[in-house]
Amino acid sequence: MALKITAFAGGVGGAKLVDGLAALLPAENLRVVVNTGDDFEHFGLTICPDLDTVIYTLAGLANPLTGWGRAEESWHVLEAVEQLGGPTWFQLGDRDLALHLERTRMLQNGEPLSAVCARLCAQLGIAVQVLPMSDDAIRTMVLTDEGILPFQEYFVASCWEPKVSGFQFRDVEKARPAPGVVEAIQLADCIIFCPSNPWVSLDPILAVPGLRAAVAEKPVIGISPIVGSQAIKGPAAKIFAELGYQPSALAVAKHYADLLTAFVIDNEDAELQSGISELGMLALATNILMQNQNDRRRLAEEVIEYVSKEVLMVVKP
Amino acid sequence: MALKITAFAGGVGGAKLVDGLAALLPAENLRVVVNTGDDFEHFGLTICPDLDTVIYTLAGLANPLTGWGRAEESWHVLEAVEQLGGPTWFQLGDRDLALHLERTRMLQNGEPLSAVCARLCAQLGIAVQVLPMSDDAIRTMVLTDEGILPFQEYFVASCWEPKVSGFQFRDVEKARPAPGVVEAIQLADCIIFCPSNPWVSLDPILAVPGLRAAVAEKPVIGISPIVGSQAIKGPAAKIFAELGYQPSALAVAKHYADLLTAFVIDNEDAELQSGISELGMLALATNILMQNQNDRRRLAEEVIEYVSKEVLMVVKP
Repeated sequence: MALKITAFAGGVGGAKLVDGLAALLPAENLRVVVNTGDDFEHFGLTICPDLDTVIYTLAGLANPLTGWGRAEESWHVLEAVEQLGGPTWFQLGDRDLALHLERTRMLQNGEPLSAVCARLCAQLGIAVQVLPMSDDAIRTMVLTDEGILPFQEYFVASCWEPKVSGFQFRDVEKARPAPGVVEAIQLADCIIFCPSNPWVSLDPILAVPGLRAAVAEKPVIGISPIVGSQAIKGPAAKIFAELGYQPSALAVAKHYADLLTAFVIDNEDAELQSGISELGMLALATNILMQNQNDRRRLAEEVIEYVSKEVLMVVKP
Repeated sequence: MALKITAFAGGVGGAKLVDGLAALLPAENLRVVVNTGDDFEHFGLTICPDLDTVIYTLAGLANPLTGWGRAEESWHVLEAVEQLGGPTWFQLGDRDLALHLERTRMLQNGEPLSAVCARLCAQLGIAVQVLPMSDDAIRTMVLTDEGILPFQEYFVASCWEPKVSGFQFRDVEKARPAPGVVEAIQLADCIIFCPSNPWVSLDPILAVPGLRAAVAEKPVIGISPIVGSQAIKGPAAKIFAELGYQPSALAVAKHYADLLTAFVIDNEDAELQSGISELGMLALATNILMQNQNDRRRLAEEVIEYVSKEVLMVVKP
């Protein structure tokens, strides 16, 4: 019997590993819980960047160069927005925009985000269950030296340049997990924390009431989003430094120390293995960079094998 | 001194005549009051078809084949909406969509439609003042044998096939004219009713509280949207017939008999001149079809000359 895996994912890095897992596991054995703290409203449309990246990646529609957005994209709408003097800081490709239009239409018809997501996945031939962490709007706010910024203003408009002092996941305290999320955790043999940003991709998921406690009952394996002192993509390392931590895979392992059963780091960081073990978890060093389709599958294969042979043998205290 | 003209317009036919007038009059002497009863919400965006047609036409961006939408348009967004299983009945070109996005963004920022319209016109280099009839949402509902249909569902989705028994301009009773509209009427030497659909393009404007009374104080010249028993474009003639009137330019003149000082019909309908005169207004027969840029200018020129030489000489009772 194949493993039942539930992966927690943010955007590009998470989507790549999920894509590798989807190539190996029967679809019914893989569920993905996706961060929605990055979601925002723009031009009256509800945009869900992490969900979209996961969906495009699993549908084979993702732009292979950027990781986000759609392949073979055109930019006629945004060019015309610019002609009208409108804001162009958020990259909206023509085909990508269709997803925001259709999602907004369904949401305004009263469908919850999880139902919208399921319909879009079915329409695009995605068999894996992709779940938003919540149907309730949770908005990641970044506390910076330039004030409190909505996530996309920090991340895209300000190119993650402002210095970070903390985060708020606005309205998370009154949010509920989306239908199927708690079940996805309970049904799983193992939870995978994808190589996503701990602070702004995975922490929002864990902040949804009930999810951290549900995860604590399960074996959990994390994959580092940091190699050496650099994030593979995005501001993870910069944020660790600004919050007073030496950025490294070890810092990520410490961040989740209470939840992790095992942690996967890059070969380049092999010397961190003993430090990670001292946190009370298994440590695996391998090549964690996913630069092409083969890398995704290879890393997913190694993670699955490691989970089967070692992680599931660990008895949580 | 050039005439001061305020034109009332719906979509394609109205925009063409306004374009001709704009080529002849100093920009500060021409104002256009545009129907917003056709406006609707789609995919979360506020779409104003008549305003857009007037704006695109005056900006030189209109599609010369259809009269609506933009020239050199592409359809990548709508193709992707179709791929997602979304509704494609309303034609949304990529560049056209930019206008709906930007307008919706400004409206959601709290700007009234008239201010949005002024900004878009300034951005597109339109010097003529283009005014929505109201900043308040008024929605034309079509009473048909298939029930009460929002205008775009009747006009586009149902291809104006249902049989019409009447109209409602929803919420018009509590609407106010947009800033500048009453002034535009009061400042004008003459009001022009463009060759737009009387029932669904001009009647909504006249239904805005205060506008019919303001127009009644002014010389008014109308241009027929019907030649023979056929509308030049759209359902005007079909609606006249369904409401029990013989469709003709005479029927249009009768429709506005209480307001019109003069009415312009096509040469083909010259025999209607005496019937129109019997309604107590002047009648001019000329070629009213506007098939190209020259036609627009020629008709506008004839209308302006007729107004100067004859219409302004009439003393309203």
